[in-house]
Amino acid sequence: MYEYLDKNRERILEEFRELLSIASIGTDSTYDGETQRAAEWVRDHMLRIGMPRAELIPTQGKPIVYGEYLLGAGEDKPTLLIYGHYDVQPPDPVEQWITPAFEPTIRDGYIYARGANDNKGQFFAHLKALEYLLKERGGLPVNVKFVVEGEEESAGDSLAKWLLSRKDSLKCDAALISDSEAPSEDVPAIDYGLRGIAYFEVKAYGAKQDLHSGMFGGGVANPANALCHLISRVHDPLTGEVFIPGFYDDVVPISEEERSLLAEVSYNEDELKQQAGVTESWGDSRYSLRERLVARPTVDIHGISSGFTGDGVKTIIPSFAKVKISFRLVGNQRPERIQELFGNFVNAFRVPGIRFEVRNLGTSPAILIPRDNLFIKVAQRAIEEVWGRKPVFNRMGGSIPVVATIWNDLGILPIGIGYGLPDDQLHSPNERMKLSMFWKGIKTTHTLLRMLGEK
Amino acid sequence: MYEYLDKNRERILEEFRELLSIASIGTDSTYDGETQRAAEWVRDHMLRIGMPRAELIPTQGKPIVYGEYLLGAGEDKPTLLIYGHYDVQPPDPVEQWITPAFEPTIRDGYIYARGANDNKGQFFAHLKALEYLLKERGGLPVNVKFVVEGEEESAGDSLAKWLLSRKDSLKCDAALISDSEAPSEDVPAIDYGLRGIAYFEVKAYGAKQDLHSGMFGGGVANPANALCHLISRVHDPLTGEVFIPGFYDDVVPISEEERSLLAEVSYNEDELKQQAGVTESWGDSRYSLRERLVARPTVDIHGISSGFTGDGVKTIIPSFAKVKISFRLVGNQRPERIQELFGNFVNAFRVPGIRFEVRNLGTSPAILIPRDNLFIKVAQRAIEEVWGRKPVFNRMGGSIPVVATIWNDLGILPIGIGYGLPDDQLHSPNERMKLSMFWKGIKTTHTLLRMLGEK
Repeated sequence: MYEYLDKNRERILEEFRELLSIASIGTDSTYDGETQRAAEWVRDHMLRIGMPRAELIPTQGKPIVYGEYLLGAGEDKPTLLIYGHYDVQPPDPVEQWITPAFEPTIRDGYIYARGANDNKGQFFAHLKALEYLLKERGGLPVNVKFVVEGEEESAGDSLAKWLLSRKDSLKCDAALISDSEAPSEDVPAIDYGLRGIAYFEVKAYGAKQDLHSGMFGGGVANPANALCHLISRVHDPLTGEVFIPGFYDDVVPISEEERSLLAEVSYNEDELKQQAGVTESWGDSRYSLRERLVARPTVDIHGISSGFTGDGVKTIIPSFAKVKISFRLVGNQRPERIQELFGNFVNAFRVPGIRFEVRNLGTSPAILIPRDNLFIKVAQRAIEEVWGRKPVFNRMGGSIPVVATIWNDLGILPIGIGYGLPDDQLHSPNERMKLSMFWKGIKTTHTLLRMLGEK
Repeated sequence: MYEYLDKNRERILEEFRELLSIASIGTDSTYDGETQRAAEWVRDHMLRIGMPRAELIPTQGKPIVYGEYLLGAGEDKPTLLIYGHYDVQPPDPVEQWITPAFEPTIRDGYIYARGANDNKGQFFAHLKALEYLLKERGGLPVNVKFVVEGEEESAGDSLAKWLLSRKDSLKCDAALISDSEAPSEDVPAIDYGLRGIAYFEVKAYGAKQDLHSGMFGGGVANPANALCHLISRVHDPLTGEVFIPGFYDDVVPISEEERSLLAEVSYNEDELKQQAGVTESWGDSRYSLRERLVARPTVDIHGISSGFTGDGVKTIIPSFAKVKISFRLVGNQRPERIQELFGNFVNAFRVPGIRFEVRNLGTSPAILIPRDNLFIKVAQRAIEEVWGRKPVFNRMGGSIPVVATIWNDLGILPIGIGYGLPDDQLHSPNERMKLSMFWKGIKTTHTLLRMLGEK
């Protein structure tokens, strides 16, 4: 079986490398040319593999690639929305990459490049499965609407707006979304939960300019000191418990059934240490490590800066400090509510001479999807055929903003199957995808579409 | 009187500009060529004005300029050590300068340049006073040993080492140090106290590399979060009170006499707001604003950095965070003791998975000098003659490390007379010196040396 993949292995890898070599950094407008190039590459590739229609949808931000196959499969066949994103995270710190982020390199069974897993590798597996089916059968067994967006990493809302504007005509039965991971190479999973996120930048303004700390220290508030105090009041340093009043109001407690489901994926301290490169785990000991990673809210600083951080000493009271900080949310926390609570919390923290400013840099609601569904059952069967074992049910710690739109707003059931692995180092230096997972991904999508066509 | 200054005004300003145009940034080794050039310029200038001897003393760091006049004045005349430093702070943020930091520009009676006040303007006034005396009398009324160092801003210890190595041969009766300020143009001051400093860098190490906050958030400690918590435990956000056990043990309480002395320099909220560009003052209300600025210890962050701080969003748990932080100290706090206490404090703050590292980046003890001294009395007379009023006694909020060596270790009485003004913006963009203060400085040094020679 799957001889097609064996025969075309080198060509497919060459195409994969081509896609990965495009520096489509979606969070930095300097790279707008590259994100545009990536979008065009994906559109052209859709046409090349035989999709009858593929186009770029212009937006206020990055273009959406939209490919459609509505011929042949027939109206009695289900229509599947397939999702991916061509934008990637910045590669910094660039000096920690063994080979450059946008020069994809194969080593020891992995392909290394920014976006190898997140998300180029995973949506490219879908594309190759479509190619496979088109070549094999001269058509697809189901109707397909394939969207690949360019604003996932920058929390943009162009895709959501476009989907909502087509709410009535979109008419899909389910959505296939691979932007996550399997617990291990041998343990496939179907995702039924995603954490949401509410991402903020807080700026603290003090004096009009940096001041000499000898001359003014003790009489003038320091915005960097004040910002540290603000952050320290948000949560507990050891458990991570958030102290913002009302923060936990909408959290759905983890049920006993879910505790069992989550425990099916064994995950221990040693695995965490190895994957994360930490000396020990951290967090609220009332919850298992896995529960903390996928089913509990968090708060993390992503970046903080103020004053003089070069070599040597400079004795200033900085005039300004800022922090990027986000809350990961779980069902049914709503980002809008968290934004309101956090804004109030910051406003209530008064330090004379300091002005705080909170800006929302992006949000995504938390998601929980029903597990007893016909489409999910087909996905279970397809996965079992390719992987040789039933998938576990999984919740993911990350956010995929569009899933909220697809499920909450459009009512289309998302089928989440991750083709990545937990140690693929996404958002970090030396991001990679295991090639065996990439091939397994193509086979899984291929089989799922075939079975959905037989349904 | 002082016709010499009127006649030579333009030439002197031209020389001053030349000195200020040298980018002798002492805290950044990229500028070592410029610091060397500044040292050579000062040495050459000493020779040019008629000092019989001037040389560069090589050190492990920046060279010391040493000029000597031991001829003529006679052994019965006192020997005066004069101090200055040719190194300056970095100019960042450079974009906030109205005219470039190393292109000295005169506007509205001020000369603007990095180092205009701190310290080139002040030691250059001493140099011009020596020139004046040498031209006027063919010699100096007292013996002079003039040292100009290049490590004041980087808290280096080359000058201290050199002074200590010459402890026996140095034999000076007093030291003239102008590296501070007068309360206003009409109110001269003699400094009898200086705050000390203990300056640290704290690094917080977490995972080996940045991690995806969705995948690992809640299970892995965040070094930026942890560092904010550590800082928040060091002190109170509203009063600045330091919570480190033992921190206040050696603080000499402010006596009633001192309260009166400090109150002689009126200093109110409005002046602070205007000088510092803040909307309101901050600090421990048990002390007057002036007391807080010069006679109480502080803690200030000078810089903090971690993770991603560019535009847009990046959802990482950073692997690393660092902060530059210092404690300003008052008599009789010893930096060595503070370093020990702070080190213990950091070590006692445990966050699982985070390793803290404390590095001492420079210290200087706090200083209190007796006010009833013959040399001080001559200085009072000299100042009164030039300024038309008696000086107030003042404590300064900043540190001048060498003063501790001169007073504590060598037993030479420092006479501190500041020629700067409180709003000269040292260590900030648009540093400046008021030209009328510069001329008054030359006259004050001139008169002081003359009176010391008559003593």
